[in-house]
Amino acid sequence: MRVAVIGVGLIGGSVAVAARERLGALVSGVDLDMAALEVAVARGLIDRGCGTVREALQGAEAAFVAVPVGAVIATVEAVLDAADAECVVTDVGSTKRAVAAACDDPRFVGGHPLAGTERSGAGYARADLFEGATWYLTPTRRTAPRSYERVAALIARLGAQPEAIQPEDHDRLVATISHLPHVLANVLVSQAAAAARHLPGFVGPSLRDAVRVAGAPSAIWTDIYLENGDLLALAIERTIAHLGEFRQALAASDAALITSLNEAAAAARRDLLGTAS
Amino acid sequence: MRVAVIGVGLIGGSVAVAARERLGALVSGVDLDMAALEVAVARGLIDRGCGTVREALQGAEAAFVAVPVGAVIATVEAVLDAADAECVVTDVGSTKRAVAAACDDPRFVGGHPLAGTERSGAGYARADLFEGATWYLTPTRRTAPRSYERVAALIARLGAQPEAIQPEDHDRLVATISHLPHVLANVLVSQAAAAARHLPGFVGPSLRDAVRVAGAPSAIWTDIYLENGDLLALAIERTIAHLGEFRQALAASDAALITSLNEAAAAARRDLLGTAS
Repeated sequence: MRVAVIGVGLIGGSVAVAARERLGALVSGVDLDMAALEVAVARGLIDRGCGTVREALQGAEAAFVAVPVGAVIATVEAVLDAADAECVVTDVGSTKRAVAAACDDPRFVGGHPLAGTERSGAGYARADLFEGATWYLTPTRRTAPRSYERVAALIARLGAQPEAIQPEDHDRLVATISHLPHVLANVLVSQAAAAARHLPGFVGPSLRDAVRVAGAPSAIWTDIYLENGDLLALAIERTIAHLGEFRQALAASDAALITSLNEAAAAARRDLLGTAS
Repeated sequence: MRVAVIGVGLIGGSVAVAARERLGALVSGVDLDMAALEVAVARGLIDRGCGTVREALQGAEAAFVAVPVGAVIATVEAVLDAADAECVVTDVGSTKRAVAAACDDPRFVGGHPLAGTERSGAGYARADLFEGATWYLTPTRRTAPRSYERVAALIARLGAQPEAIQPEDHDRLVATISHLPHVLANVLVSQAAAAARHLPGFVGPSLRDAVRVAGAPSAIWTDIYLENGDLLALAIERTIAHLGEFRQALAASDAALITSLNEAAAAARRDLLGTAS
């Protein structure tokens, strides 16, 4: 089969090389960044680097749009315009309401793999990036059931677990489990760096983990934050309220309340990660 | 040499086994929890399990107090009372102002190794826990220079890097780099668990890292939070202010401000972890 990948960064490049290795697909890639395209060719992520979306789409049965969130809608529209009637189209953007509303074509279903690292770029792409990862799909009433089924089957063969979800539910979830942690890491790293000036060598493993995703590439993340701004703002407001409650407990030296807040967190952690984690 | 370890949990047990393996010391241990003492003997962390502090201190040239923060002062006092005139005494508690003020004996110097895991207990103790870790020491005007030098030399031989710091500076630093990250992990995990109910399988590596220290044992952490309550409350207030600024930027859809906050976090991350991290 032929697969087109539009945008060969960490995610697109990993889709490409996984499609080559696991589906035996012939993969065409295109990227506005010629250096990224060269890396993708040199690393064998794609079979062919193309100059245009139309060229990459020739004969493709499936197209993955893996460009920054701010460019997803325009790119999906260009891909749908160039793609055959039988080609399924999906994207990998971190927010799903806007693209689901804008791109109402029977061949299209939005998607979002919960995979990645703090690294970006084709240089870090790898075929096993999606192994065991949840990959959300957000079919709408306009998505043909057969398109959804084909995309779900493809990503399952890339190693991921497809999971259908409403676009609104998706965006509410990622506001809390992905976007908020990035904001907290940013806030924490700035304070830690300020506190640590002239006090070297103190970065233990827990601080390192806590700030690992801080300062993620602005070219990607400013758009993500803005597209999900309303739901992320709600998550931040809840966070501020919880922090205020804890600060009050400290001010009152209320050991019982502090313990109960900590035990609630321990219970939530068990819910989230399982008791063995 | 003979070393006494009072409290054979994760940290005390690791001090004990590192002292045995790296200093060739004969290590006596004592713990209020008989089960922990049995584990320490069974795992070979200590040479001898004792029933009392006085028994553990017999002939000891150095004593490490590794009990929960709330019990540190009373335990250090009991140890100083039982220890020989030539025995140096230190503790490993996460806050340093209170113990530095209370325990003014020439043989005593407070300490705090920046090491540990989210696991606690003698079962997880290991000889290499302090390898490369910063180990803060907080000598006061009452600490004999020779006591400081002996403790610093001992912990260097355990693999750590001793670093002298004022108790106040220490507590201000750990409020931001250790206690605040625990509070943020607690606040995040509760929200994530609530958001995730009925939406299984979404816990990616970045969320897992972000909540790793959530719900740390209350028996240890309630005391830590309370002892450092004033400085931790200040760190929380700064965090709330930063979150409020970001929320405002989202509400105003201010892409330039969001990008500049994110770039400041990226720069802080480079400051903190180095460019390669």
